[in-house]
Amino acid sequence: MAQGSWIRRMFEAGAELKEQYGAENVFDLSLGNPVMEPPAQFRGELRRLVENPLPGRHRYMANAGYAETRAAVAAQLSLETGIRFTRDDIIMTCGAAGALNVVLKTILNQGDEVILFVPYFPEYINYIDNHGGIAKVLDTDEQFLPRLDVLETAIGAKTKAVLINSPNNPSGVVYSEDLIHQFGELLGRKGTQYGTQIFLISDEAYRRIIYDGRKYPYVWPHYQRSIIVTSHSKDLALPGERIGYIAVHPAFSQREELVAGFIYCNRTLGYVNAPALMQHIVRHLQSVTVPITEYQKKRDFLYEHLSEMGYSVIKPQGAFYLFPKSPLKDDVAFVKELQRWLVLTVPGCGFGSPGYFRVSYCVDDRTLEGSLDGFRQAAQKFNLG
Amino acid sequence: MAQGSWIRRMFEAGAELKEQYGAENVFDLSLGNPVMEPPAQFRGELRRLVENPLPGRHRYMANAGYAETRAAVAAQLSLETGIRFTRDDIIMTCGAAGALNVVLKTILNQGDEVILFVPYFPEYINYIDNHGGIAKVLDTDEQFLPRLDVLETAIGAKTKAVLINSPNNPSGVVYSEDLIHQFGELLGRKGTQYGTQIFLISDEAYRRIIYDGRKYPYVWPHYQRSIIVTSHSKDLALPGERIGYIAVHPAFSQREELVAGFIYCNRTLGYVNAPALMQHIVRHLQSVTVPITEYQKKRDFLYEHLSEMGYSVIKPQGAFYLFPKSPLKDDVAFVKELQRWLVLTVPGCGFGSPGYFRVSYCVDDRTLEGSLDGFRQAAQKFNLG
Repeated sequence: MAQGSWIRRMFEAGAELKEQYGAENVFDLSLGNPVMEPPAQFRGELRRLVENPLPGRHRYMANAGYAETRAAVAAQLSLETGIRFTRDDIIMTCGAAGALNVVLKTILNQGDEVILFVPYFPEYINYIDNHGGIAKVLDTDEQFLPRLDVLETAIGAKTKAVLINSPNNPSGVVYSEDLIHQFGELLGRKGTQYGTQIFLISDEAYRRIIYDGRKYPYVWPHYQRSIIVTSHSKDLALPGERIGYIAVHPAFSQREELVAGFIYCNRTLGYVNAPALMQHIVRHLQSVTVPITEYQKKRDFLYEHLSEMGYSVIKPQGAFYLFPKSPLKDDVAFVKELQRWLVLTVPGCGFGSPGYFRVSYCVDDRTLEGSLDGFRQAAQKFNLG
Repeated sequence: MAQGSWIRRMFEAGAELKEQYGAENVFDLSLGNPVMEPPAQFRGELRRLVENPLPGRHRYMANAGYAETRAAVAAQLSLETGIRFTRDDIIMTCGAAGALNVVLKTILNQGDEVILFVPYFPEYINYIDNHGGIAKVLDTDEQFLPRLDVLETAIGAKTKAVLINSPNNPSGVVYSEDLIHQFGELLGRKGTQYGTQIFLISDEAYRRIIYDGRKYPYVWPHYQRSIIVTSHSKDLALPGERIGYIAVHPAFSQREELVAGFIYCNRTLGYVNAPALMQHIVRHLQSVTVPITEYQKKRDFLYEHLSEMGYSVIKPQGAFYLFPKSPLKDDVAFVKELQRWLVLTVPGCGFGSPGYFRVSYCVDDRTLEGSLDGFRQAAQKFNLG
C-alpha cells in the first residue's frame, strides 16, 4: 500500500495546497487524468444511440462482451498487425486495470512469479498480490530499458509471466521492435528449458499515444504466448468509463482454454461484463484517437524547458509523462521542494525508481506554463545547468 | 465452478435448442436478465448529457465516485430510512457484484467465515473464495427463512460476516422486519461473546422489486455493523452498465476506517471507479424505478398457473423468480424434462437447494404464456395436482 499510495498522497497534498492558495495558483502535474475531451465522434455515437433507442441495449450480454464490439476490435487489430484476429480472441473488460486483474487471476497459482521492470505503474504490485502472485522487479539501464541478461538470470521455474508496459508510465519509453523480438526469443527458450509456459503480458494503455511518427511495435509477431491488456482511457479520453479489452494471439495453441478462463474470471471477479453503453460506442471508434499532436506539443514544450533548466530527462516517445532525475538524491524531499512553489509531481520511489520524479503533462497549457517558474526556482536552488 | 456454472450450462443448452427449433419456439426462463427497458427518465437524462456536454465528464474522479452522486444516493436512503446518511457513507461501484467483491476483499482475512443461507445466488461462493474466505452455508425452513437457532450455533470466532439477500434470488422471499431485528440482536450478542465484529452484509439488488404494497424492511435500524451492497441493474433495468453502490451505517464506530478500506479495494481490485456516465445519470434517478406492477402481474400469472397445475411453490414477495419444488427428487433430471418441451429453467442444486428449480419471470408475456404447455405436460407426466 505504501508504494501505490504515493500518487494518492500527492493528490491529498495538492488538495490542501489548492484549498490554501486557490486551485488556479497550484500547478498539478501529479495525475494521469487526461485533460482532453473524447473526440467528436464519441459524442456523435452517443447521440446516435440516444436518438435510436433499441430494446435490450442495457441488458446483460455474454460475459466476454458483445460479439459485434469484439469483432470490431479484432478487425482493427488485424488491420494494424497483419495477423488475423477474430472476436474469439477478444474479451471486453472494465478498463485495462480490470483486464489485468482478470488475466492475473486466470494464469497465476499461489506463489507464481511475475517479472516487471522499473519504473513501473505502482498498482501492478497490488494486482499481482491480489491473485497470490509474487512481483519480481528488475532493474533497467539508464534509458529505462530492460537488460536481457538480467531478465535471463531472473527467469526461473516459478516465472509465470513477464509484464511490460510500452509506452511506459512513468518514463514515456517505447520498446523497440528489436527488443520485443529478443524478449520473445528469450521467453520461448526459457519456457522450453523449464518445461513451462511463460506469458508476455503487454499493457498497452498508451499504445496510441506515441510520437514523432513512430510505428508501434506489437508483441504479436514475436511471441505467441502474448496477452495484451489495454483500454480506451487514453486514446479516447474515457478513463472514468472503464472500457478496455484483453486480446490473445489467434495462433496460441491453448487459446480456447485461456479465453475461457478470462471469461470465467471476468464474471467471477464481479466485473461481470464491460459497461454495455461504452461497448456500443467504442465498437464504432476503433480507428479514432484524440489528437496526439497536442500531447506531442506539450511534451516538446515541457521537455525543452526542463532540459534547458538543467534537468536530466529522457525525451519520451509515448504516453504523457516525463520522468526526470531528481536534483536531490531524495526524490520525496525534492517533490516537497517543488510543492513549495506550488508544483505537484510524484516521487520516483512510487514507481520503484527512487532518485527520479514523474511529471504528467496531460494538463492544459496554462498549467504547464505556470509550472515553469517553480521548476526553474528548484533548478537554481540545486545548481542545475 | 461446478455450482456457479449451472446457469451458464442452461444458457448453453438453451442456445442449442434455439438453434435447433428457432428462438421463438424456445421458452427461456433461465436468466435474470430483465426484459424491461430503463424508465423514460433514464433516456431523458442521457439526452440531457448529450445536449449539454461539460468538460471532464468522462475523466477519472475520486475512487469512491462523484460527490454529487454519492450525496444523491445518501439523500434517498435518508428519506427512505429516517437515518441521516451523507455522501461519506456511500461508495459507488461497478454493480452489486463489484460492490460485494470490494466488501469481501476489505473485511476478510484468510480463513474467515462468511455465513449464507440456502437458496443462495451461486456467485457468492466464488466471491467469498476470491478473497480467501470460507462460505458456511446454512439450511433454512420450508419457507426458505433462516432458523435463528441454526444461525446461533453456526456463528463462531471465525465468523466475519453473515450475508443475506432479501428479496431473495432465487426464492423471492422477503425477510420480515422482525427477523432482521432478531438477526441484529443475535449478531451483536455473538460479537460481544467472541470479542469480534460480525458484519451483516445485505445484498439488496432486488430491494425495489417488491410486491403487494409491502414496505422494504431495511437492516439499518437493527444493526450498526450493516453493510449494504446493491445496484441499479434491476430497479432501473441497467444490468449491463455495471452501476451500483456500497452503503455503511453512518453511526458505525469504525465507519471511516471501513470506508477507506472499501475505497482502497475498489481501486486496487482494478474497478478503479464506477462508470462515470452512469454515475451522472443515476444521480438524478434515485427515486425512479421500472414499473413494478408489471413484474407483479407476471408473478401472479405464473404463480397461479403453476399452483393450479399442482406445482408446490411459495408465492414470492419480491425479485422476479419462482422457486418451485421439483416433482422429481433429481432437479437436474426434471429441468432436462422441461427442456424436452423447450422450457428452460435452472436446477435448484445450483443455488444450494437440490429438489427445487428456478423459473425467471422477467421475460415478455409471450414467453411466459408459451411456457405453460411445457409446465403442464411435465406436471401431468409426474402426476401432480
